[in-house]
Amino acid sequence: MLPAIHIFLVNYIGGEMMTEIHTLCIVAHPAIEESGSQQFLIQTGKSITHTEYIDLAKLDSSKAKIDFSKYHQIIFQFPLYWYQAPAILKKWIDENWHLYSKAELAGKTMGVVVIVGQKAQRYQLGGTEGRSISELLVSFELIAKYSQMRFKPIFPIYQFHYLTEKQKVKLLWRYGYYLEHLDAGDFMSMQRYILNRAHQLTESELSFTSDAQKMQWEMFLQKLEHSAYAIEEIVDLKKEW
Amino acid sequence: MLPAIHIFLVNYIGGEMMTEIHTLCIVAHPAIEESGSQQFLIQTGKSITHTEYIDLAKLDSSKAKIDFSKYHQIIFQFPLYWYQAPAILKKWIDENWHLYSKAELAGKTMGVVVIVGQKAQRYQLGGTEGRSISELLVSFELIAKYSQMRFKPIFPIYQFHYLTEKQKVKLLWRYGYYLEHLDAGDFMSMQRYILNRAHQLTESELSFTSDAQKMQWEMFLQKLEHSAYAIEEIVDLKKEW
Repeated sequence: MLPAIHIFLVNYIGGEMMTEIHTLCIVAHPAIEESGSQQFLIQTGKSITHTEYIDLAKLDSSKAKIDFSKYHQIIFQFPLYWYQAPAILKKWIDENWHLYSKAELAGKTMGVVVIVGQKAQRYQLGGTEGRSISELLVSFELIAKYSQMRFKPIFPIYQFHYLTEKQKVKLLWRYGYYLEHLDAGDFMSMQRYILNRAHQLTESELSFTSDAQKMQWEMFLQKLEHSAYAIEEIVDLKKEW
Repeated sequence: MLPAIHIFLVNYIGGEMMTEIHTLCIVAHPAIEESGSQQFLIQTGKSITHTEYIDLAKLDSSKAKIDFSKYHQIIFQFPLYWYQAPAILKKWIDENWHLYSKAELAGKTMGVVVIVGQKAQRYQLGGTEGRSISELLVSFELIAKYSQMRFKPIFPIYQFHYLTEKQKVKLLWRYGYYLEHLDAGDFMSMQRYILNRAHQLTESELSFTSDAQKMQWEMFLQKLEHSAYAIEEIVDLKKEW
């Protein structure tokens, strides 16, 4: 029954859940309805996380200064247009960012989810563009720095429309992790995140048709936990060397 | 009477003048009238060069796709807002740049004149911002590359409102050079540019009150030419070593 692993996981997951991250995702796209990638991301964020979304194209101009007080992190989500954020986002920043006091922003985390139409390999030295997406978006890093916010690694999505269903499922969980955490995630934290989510699934969500099926699911989870624990042990050992 | 120098200069200046550069300067500022730096630059450009200006804030929306056919170079001129070009420029690019065919842009030169409110030293490794203005504006380089345009070194102006009158005069000539040439200028080319302009001044512009004054001016010019020639000789010698 692997009690040690169970205790480890329950403690760890408990710790994670106690500090739920409140995230606001500001979507900058001229027409979200027409964008397959934005639809996929927003539906994902709304179904597997508690992220709140704001559509800049539909923002009430009298509430243009968005209240950030209840959020731990602000994510800007947009397609790359001419190697930069779309004008709609720059307009909102130009008109509103100076309205925030340092106290309203300091200590919060800023993230960027950017949808890129071309292949990742173009955005590197020797590639067609020869510059990285990080280089292109350096102004966001500086806005965060100016506002004493933490800037976490950006989350680029390349060629969404060419993703296979399997790749989309992987993207779904990686994106969910990005929204629910203040970091950008590595293999270990992604593993824990997915295990955590699996444990939270209720019986009605899983809709078992028999006790045997339920037992099969529990065994599967236990196997996953065992593997995860084994990987964590190896990584811990490596740190000690 | 230094005939050799005269022949050299006349040939050189003649060559320069034969290929007059047609420049369009697209100004992106929400209210040009209220900007001291934009007023200074536009008045300079209009008085000492043949540059044509377009004020994006007043652009007729039916003519938003500007006809570039008669220009050798396109200069974007704007203040740095939140580490990027103002929204008004991004909006114009987002809405219009895709309307140009490669043939309409290829081979032309793109330049950027950017007005920066803070000190230059902030924009470097270890500085407050820690990034250079060139890094921040890399998207313009990529737009030029995409359109098969030449991207010339950017022309940043730091803390315009703190410039002394002497510094403003220097800026005036450096800016004039930038508008009238496809390069960004070095000491030698600036020197020739100013000498050339001095030679073009008519007697009515100089408004001499006596023959002695006229002679004084001519001697002054000759002295400048002599120094310029001496510097050029040294630089030429250095190349041979």
